[in-house]
Amino acid sequence: MLKFIPVKYIFSRNKEFLRKVYRLTGFYPRNISIFKIAFTHKSASIQFDNDKYINNERLEYLGDAILAAVIADYLFSYFPFKKEGFLTKIRARIVSREQLNEIAIKMGFQDLVVSQMRINGTKNIYGNAFEALIGAIYIDKGYKKTKKFIINRIIKKHINISELIVTDSDYKSQLIELAQKNKLEILFEDSDAQPIEQNVPYFNSTITLNNQILGKGTGSSKKEAQQNASREALVKILEFLP
Amino acid sequence: MLKFIPVKYIFSRNKEFLRKVYRLTGFYPRNISIFKIAFTHKSASIQFDNDKYINNERLEYLGDAILAAVIADYLFSYFPFKKEGFLTKIRARIVSREQLNEIAIKMGFQDLVVSQMRINGTKNIYGNAFEALIGAIYIDKGYKKTKKFIINRIIKKHINISELIVTDSDYKSQLIELAQKNKLEILFEDSDAQPIEQNVPYFNSTITLNNQILGKGTGSSKKEAQQNASREALVKILEFLP
Repeated sequence: MLKFIPVKYIFSRNKEFLRKVYRLTGFYPRNISIFKIAFTHKSASIQFDNDKYINNERLEYLGDAILAAVIADYLFSYFPFKKEGFLTKIRARIVSREQLNEIAIKMGFQDLVVSQMRINGTKNIYGNAFEALIGAIYIDKGYKKTKKFIINRIIKKHINISELIVTDSDYKSQLIELAQKNKLEILFEDSDAQPIEQNVPYFNSTITLNNQILGKGTGSSKKEAQQNASREALVKILEFLP
Repeated sequence: MLKFIPVKYIFSRNKEFLRKVYRLTGFYPRNISIFKIAFTHKSASIQFDNDKYINNERLEYLGDAILAAVIADYLFSYFPFKKEGFLTKIRARIVSREQLNEIAIKMGFQDLVVSQMRINGTKNIYGNAFEALIGAIYIDKGYKKTKKFIINRIIKKHINISELIVTDSDYKSQLIELAQKNKLEILFEDSDAQPIEQNVPYFNSTITLNNQILGKGTGSSKKEAQQNASREALVKILEFLP
C-alpha cells in the first residue's frame, strides 16, 4: 500500500523519483541527493569544482561493507550452530555479483539507474547501484533501518537460504551422506584420464545404484567429474525419496 | 577513571574478568558468557552436547564484518572527496592481520585470551580474539555502541591515518629515495601504450642500475607499470644493501 507522500514533497520536482524510491524501499528519503547519486553510474558522473566527479562508486563501497555486515549478522543468528566457514560460504553466495545483479533487476533498477552506457549484458551496473542504494539508506536512515530493509526487502523476498545450502557445491559428500542415511548402495566408477582436444585430459565418472545409472559427469579432474556426476545423481535421488 | 562495578556483579565470581573487560571497552557487559567466548581460542574450545564446541571463531567471523563496515563508514566521512579505490586501500591497511595483532597486543589481550597453544610467534590468536571481541560487543550492545568503541578506542588511539597514507605503497618514491640515499643511479624506461587483447592498452616499465635490470612491471597506466617495476626493484635493492 502506498503511503501518502509527505507534504513537503507534494510539489517537489522529484515527486516521481521519490515515489520510485518509496516503492523500492518502503520509505521516503530525507536526503534526496544521496539517493540520486546512488543511481548515477560512473558513465553519467556529475562534474563539480572542475576536477571532481560524483557518481555512485563511493556509495557502492560503503553499501558493500554494510550489506556484508548485515548478512553476517543475519546468518550468525539464523544458524546458531554452524561454523564460521559455513557462514562465510553462504554469505559469499548471497552477495555474489550475479545474485546482486539479479536481485537489482527483479527490483526494477533498470528504471532508476542513470547511465550513458549502452547496456549490453553488463548487468553489473544494477548490482553496483543496488549496493550504492544500501549505502544511501545507511547514510540517510542509519544502521538499524538499513538492516531492516535488507532483511525484509532483500533476504526474505529474494533469497532462498535453504536452496543456497542445498546448492552447496560439495555434491559428492551430500550424495554419500544421503545414501547412507537411506541405506542405498551407490557405486562410483571413474575412468582414467582421457586425452581430448588440446591435450587437456578429461575424466568420466559414473554413479550407479543397483546397476542403474544415477548420474554421469565429466571434468578436467577426477574430482570434478565426480562432482558433476554426483549433482546429477543427487537430483535423481531426491526425486525418489519421500 | 574506573567506574564502580555494577551492584549485581559485586559478588560475582567473574569480578576480575569484568574489570578487565571494563578496562578494555569502557563498559560492563550484559551478557558475560559472550565475552568469555570471545577470548576463547579454538585450542581451548568448550565442549557441549557431545559433538559441539564453543570458541571464538564464529564471533570472529561476525566481528570481522562489523569492523569492516564501521571502518568503511568512518573513512567515507573522513575523506569526503577520495575515490572508493583509495578508501578500500586504506581500509585494508587498517584491518590487516598485522595491524590487528599489534593493536590487540597493545590492548593487553595476552592477559585475556584463553588458549592451549604454546605461543610461539603466532600473534594471530590476539588479532582474531580482537575481532571476536567486536562481535561480542555488537551482540551485547548493538551497532551504534560498537561503532563508538571502534572509533574512540581503536581508531583514535591506535591508528595513525595520515601515516597509513604516507606509507602508501608508493614504491616509486620509496625506490627513488633509497637510491638517492645510497647514491645509486637508477633509470626508468617506459614504453608507450601497447595495444593488447580487447583493445585495452597496457604499459611496460623497466628500471635499470648500471645497465642491469632491477625490475620490470606492466600495468594499465604508466604509473601502475612504474609502481610494479619499482616494487620489484625495491626488493632487489634491499637485498643488496647492508
